[in-house]
Amino acid sequence: MRIQDLDTPSVLIDREVMERNVRRFQTYCNEHGLRNRPHIKTHKVPELARLQVSLGAVGVTCQKLGEAEVMAEAGVEDIFLPYNLLGPQKLARAVDLAGRIRLSLTCDSVTVARGLSDAAGRRGLEIPVLVECDTGMGRCGAQSPAAARTLAQAVDRLPGLRFGGLMTYPPARRTERTAAFLAETLDLCARAGLQVALVSSGGSVDMWRAHEVRGVTEHRPGTYIYNDRYMVASGTATLEDCAMRVLVTVVSRPTRDRAIIDAGSKTFSSDTLACDGYGHIVEYPDAKIYELNEEHGYVAVAADGPGPAVGDRLHVVPNHACVVSNLFDRVFGVRGDEVDATWTVAARGKVQ
Amino acid sequence: MRIQDLDTPSVLIDREVMERNVRRFQTYCNEHGLRNRPHIKTHKVPELARLQVSLGAVGVTCQKLGEAEVMAEAGVEDIFLPYNLLGPQKLARAVDLAGRIRLSLTCDSVTVARGLSDAAGRRGLEIPVLVECDTGMGRCGAQSPAAARTLAQAVDRLPGLRFGGLMTYPPARRTERTAAFLAETLDLCARAGLQVALVSSGGSVDMWRAHEVRGVTEHRPGTYIYNDRYMVASGTATLEDCAMRVLVTVVSRPTRDRAIIDAGSKTFSSDTLACDGYGHIVEYPDAKIYELNEEHGYVAVAADGPGPAVGDRLHVVPNHACVVSNLFDRVFGVRGDEVDATWTVAARGKVQ
Repeated sequence: MRIQDLDTPSVLIDREVMERNVRRFQTYCNEHGLRNRPHIKTHKVPELARLQVSLGAVGVTCQKLGEAEVMAEAGVEDIFLPYNLLGPQKLARAVDLAGRIRLSLTCDSVTVARGLSDAAGRRGLEIPVLVECDTGMGRCGAQSPAAARTLAQAVDRLPGLRFGGLMTYPPARRTERTAAFLAETLDLCARAGLQVALVSSGGSVDMWRAHEVRGVTEHRPGTYIYNDRYMVASGTATLEDCAMRVLVTVVSRPTRDRAIIDAGSKTFSSDTLACDGYGHIVEYPDAKIYELNEEHGYVAVAADGPGPAVGDRLHVVPNHACVVSNLFDRVFGVRGDEVDATWTVAARGKVQ
Repeated sequence: MRIQDLDTPSVLIDREVMERNVRRFQTYCNEHGLRNRPHIKTHKVPELARLQVSLGAVGVTCQKLGEAEVMAEAGVEDIFLPYNLLGPQKLARAVDLAGRIRLSLTCDSVTVARGLSDAAGRRGLEIPVLVECDTGMGRCGAQSPAAARTLAQAVDRLPGLRFGGLMTYPPARRTERTAAFLAETLDLCARAGLQVALVSSGGSVDMWRAHEVRGVTEHRPGTYIYNDRYMVASGTATLEDCAMRVLVTVVSRPTRDRAIIDAGSKTFSSDTLACDGYGHIVEYPDAKIYELNEEHGYVAVAADGPGPAVGDRLHVVPNHACVVSNLFDRVFGVRGDEVDATWTVAARGKVQ
């Protein structure tokens, strides 16, 4: 099948670019002695998780249990889930999964740790649990090195759990602050006699600087496999590194300066990530996707040029690859004009 | 099953409120002699489309062929698809569908009309095609009454098509402008000897004023079945009219003034629709969901109150109901604390 045979909107993944992206960061990790544990939220495709592992990743990261269950089913044997799990349904599923694969979890409160301990203890399991540190993101996580140390001690004492190390999702461009928080926490843990087996960091924007943060032993990049307009805007990747493109059709040219494409927020999401507009149109790099409705993208085009005609097909590099993956049931792997893979986005929509 | 048995995040639909919403607008349409053709994009659930039809709707509106195929399969026999269809795949599917149910379509250019004509003519069909008018939305549509009349004439002459009337998706709160555009177009069509069998308008914000726009014979409300925070903000509905609530869990209380819930942009989307924050928390009406990541919602809570604890479950009225439906594979119909229906969102993710 060729790209011209696909209907629109369709998500195309350039396999050559995608594989180059995966290999490049793996090489970086190997050179710096970092463990690479990519986050599957960007692609949600079992085949691509297996590719990442086959090229050297120690395992994968999933944000939801439903994602982890899909990846385990597909043969991934080592999964980290850096999200507080609560409630009887999720705890039962988590210990089921921990009985089948190597699953590590996280917590940022004693409440979460106790729930995990109760569930794991009943099954006779010992689950590694990392303590989440808020190193500046202002989201979840222990708020100070002392609080992280105290929680680590609590985890260490709870039956069914093993203190697995420290985890952070750091804010972009603040590596010094992250480094300071982690250094102090490591120091406090050492003084408390706690061994920190692992320090796991994340994010794609600062991924080429992961080795600069002392103590970090593992990194969890997500977007790097596809890259997107936000990664380009942040200087982490180039447009040529963007493996994901959305094939769209111009469905209306109501005025000389406006084109409407058949891709709106149900294709791109409403995420701008501080980018100008909602995507980069490869064929019209100066055109701006200035507004989205669910099924319509509004494009400002130069009024003095011919611009795209009704029926023309365009390629759009989205602002945020992860959310596009979550909106499609399948994506197409392409080489040149050939479609040589259809991947089911099997972990799409796993909200629980 | 009871609500307490559901895991989070889950989408709850209060059946009593939902049915009241459907009946109320149907009564309004009956009183004003308007045809009601609800847009299924808000719910994407066949059972609810059938409910709308059983309570008096003349049929439904779908934005995508894939949605229309799902609804036709579920027994809906009259579907309007107000979206420019282009390309061999969609045209083949459209005429297939037009052979099975009463399907009406739309166009805003001769290019689109010719494609429909070719496809319909080859099958020996005569498909009603409405001409889209841009009455101020600035999206698709003929840009002037004269352009609409000229396109209507072209449609009228093309084999395989029948000029089906006028269609507009009007901007909110601009009914005078919409009325003026339609009145002039109707006048021009009459002078050209063109019968305008139908004038179809849409949108929920102005739905109680649909009868004020002279010439409009049909309305296509979407959100009214569930309502949402945007409908409340626009004064069209009250919080008590909101049938959709998202059940979420507080997964972290990192600081006295911040709570994190297990619902982010993968649950609510990033749509604000000019609302303040990303949803209304029923149990904490003064708390603000001030930021979303894919799986995290950041909630600002009063630092001097106890606020929600880790593990607490909350109910959130989303800003935009339609996009929430598109992010869930199923939703739950509830009466009081009882879950008495599980509806598959069968038309979810139909991007083509």
